[in-house]
Amino acid sequence: MNKNRLEAFSDGVLAILITIMVLELKVPATPTIDALLPVYPVFLSYVLSFVYLAIYWNNHHHMLHTVGKVNGAILWANLHLLFWLSLIPFVTAWIGENHFASLPTGVYGVVMLMAAIAYFILQQIIIASQGAGSLLKKAVGGDWKGKISPILYLSAIGAAFWLPWISLGIYVLVALIWLVPDKRIEKMFMREG
Amino acid sequence: MNKNRLEAFSDGVLAILITIMVLELKVPATPTIDALLPVYPVFLSYVLSFVYLAIYWNNHHHMLHTVGKVNGAILWANLHLLFWLSLIPFVTAWIGENHFASLPTGVYGVVMLMAAIAYFILQQIIIASQGAGSLLKKAVGGDWKGKISPILYLSAIGAAFWLPWISLGIYVLVALIWLVPDKRIEKMFMREG
Amino acid sequence: MNKNRLEAFSDGVLAILITIMVLELKVPATPTIDALLPVYPVFLSYVLSFVYLAIYWNNHHHMLHTVGKVNGAILWANLHLLFWLSLIPFVTAWIGENHFASLPTGVYGVVMLMAAIAYFILQQIIIASQGAGSLLKKAVGGDWKGKISPILYLSAIGAAFWLPWISLGIYVLVALIWLVPDKRIEKMFMREG
Amino acid sequence: MNKNRLEAFSDGVLAILITIMVLELKVPATPTIDALLPVYPVFLSYVLSFVYLAIYWNNHHHMLHTVGKVNGAILWANLHLLFWLSLIPFVTAWIGENHFASLPTGVYGVVMLMAAIAYFILQQIIIASQGAGSLLKKAVGGDWKGKISPILYLSAIGAAFWLPWISLGIYVLVALIWLVPDKRIEKMFMREG
Repeated sequence: MNKNRLEAFSDGVLAILITIMVLELKVPATPTIDALLPVYPVFLSYVLSFVYLAIYWNNHHHMLHTVGKVNGAILWANLHLLFWLSLIPFVTAWIGENHFASLPTGVYGVVMLMAAIAYFILQQIIIASQGAGSLLKKAVGGDWKGKISPILYLSAIGAAFWLPWISLGIYVLVALIWLVPDKRIEKMFMREG
Repeated sequence: MNKNRLEAFSDGVLAILITIMVLELKVPATPTIDALLPVYPVFLSYVLSFVYLAIYWNNHHHMLHTVGKVNGAILWANLHLLFWLSLIPFVTAWIGENHFASLPTGVYGVVMLMAAIAYFILQQIIIASQGAGSLLKKAVGGDWKGKISPILYLSAIGAAFWLPWISLGIYVLVALIWLVPDKRIEKMFMREG
Repeated sequence: MNKNRLEAFSDGVLAILITIMVLELKVPATPTIDALLPVYPVFLSYVLSFVYLAIYWNNHHHMLHTVGKVNGAILWANLHLLFWLSLIPFVTAWIGENHFASLPTGVYGVVMLMAAIAYFILQQIIIASQGAGSLLKKAVGGDWKGKISPILYLSAIGAAFWLPWISLGIYVLVALIWLVPDKRIEKMFMREG
Repeated sequence: MNKNRLEAFSDGVLAILITIMVLELKVPATPTIDALLPVYPVFLSYVLSFVYLAIYWNNHHHMLHTVGKVNGAILWANLHLLFWLSLIPFVTAWIGENHFASLPTGVYGVVMLMAAIAYFILQQIIIASQGAGSLLKKAVGGDWKGKISPILYLSAIGAAFWLPWISLGIYVLVALIWLVPDKRIEKMFMREG
């Protein structure tokens, strides 16, 4: 299987996910400030999830850039990642419509944790497929972002049942950590090319 | 007509189908476990259909990989397959919202059976278009998966009106049978290339 | 502007349109035949519109195949066509939910007529851009399908307020007329190539 | 990162946005003129937003046509633009369902203003990345359209709380100003090529 097909399919799914979330922004019934204001938590969660999906799209590209041939394991690890990402519109709407209540805020973290694990699995499978001298392994290096994110998600899940706003702060923090495109891989290619 | 356009269009439709199913996961009105729990049958059926669509996408690619030129018959057989696949979100939601009741479970099998038949027709048309020494024919070989699936679907449809959970077990079984990417075609290309 | 971008964007819009129509198939509330049966008119109109959109996708490709460079007029004529096609899910749901009542059946014909006119305009603009010896002009020839369709749509719109089932029959007839991929253009390319 | 991926992802998001707006055209419950008529303001706002998104798609292409390599700043400025464009279906439905009342009409202008600013930022980042002799800078020239649009949006936002129909007229005016594809960039490429 060609890498381009995998990229195109993943791009398609990510483009749809990032866009259909807006369908959860329920149109207010009346043209008043009072009707618009309740939309703001859904809007905030929309912004957060938009940034997360954009980060995944961005890093997914950098990662696949190092891949030559796609095998069955890479293909299914990629679909596994898309599965968890596909749940983001659901938890985004739930968290927003309930004003960041404990349970939705915790479940949001669970989905994010599973997506991070799926991303890690995909990364390891690609590295394994590249054998010794893996381009991706060199690029990822110590992978401190990949290691700290699950810990932060776990903290956020725990905090959700106590002070969900702290969980929310952690989600924003993780997004900020990743927001900067992964310089390591970018640098690699500059050195290689 | 160029093969790439057919692939791109099919990829687009499959990416949309696999993604819009999540819109059927109704967001619980309250932030409680009691409100989340009723979502689990819809979630289970979502996982099952996600896997089915992923399998179709995967095998569809392997199959089209053997195709050179696309003719009108291939084009319409492909659209016929997409039509039946497009009904998956509908039956997935119906089966989930009714907790795998008899009728939806049976109708789910009917849609899967029709998709399998449409896939078989597409396969035969491609083989016919390739003439003697068809690459796809050699790759497909005895096609035991393609032959056993309709029989299993028919059993599941029958069982649905008696014990729908057995039907569900059969659907999971068919998915597992196909989950392994088709080694036959993969091997073919390794030998050829 | 590159032709590929226009094709990719049009493909995207058509793939989404053909797929989101299934969201209008409202999932029955209960797992009974009585709850499923009312879906059948929406299902029938879904099949009809699926075939129409598939025909447009197919012919659109054949037409663009003759195009070299895309200018502003082609681009906006193409968007104009996509606009009318984008209304198909709306009229499809309306016609189905009201069991092919007069007004929706007539409005369905109006949208189809406007799409046919938009297709004709796009075709003429491409022919004009190709100058004398236009490849598309030769391929289209007498264009009897393009000429008879608007007349049939107009008859169907008129019949809708009298016997809507006759209109429906006419829509099916037009679909059948177009269902055969345009041999003229296909032949052209075989002779040329 | 490759420019093609950025273009394909942006195309995907824009194709989805322009298409899902039609889901906000609520299907009338009955097959009567009385049930269809209330749809007309939503339809009008749909036409307006369809044209706006088509213009953005068109100009976005012309702009990216001048880009060689994509860096992180371009990538995130592009996602920022897509974010504001993704809110268009929401404000389109709100403005239409409330018959162009003051608040939705003003908020529509705010989203358009933010999208225009995001477009301007993206343009400036691309120009900066191209250094002296930027192809895009020459193409954009005095950029009177880019300068007058925010002023017109601001006027429309102000007018919304007084006479919303004037705001609507201004939105139509801005669309007409941009409707003509940007001759400057087109000319550039003709001279260059």
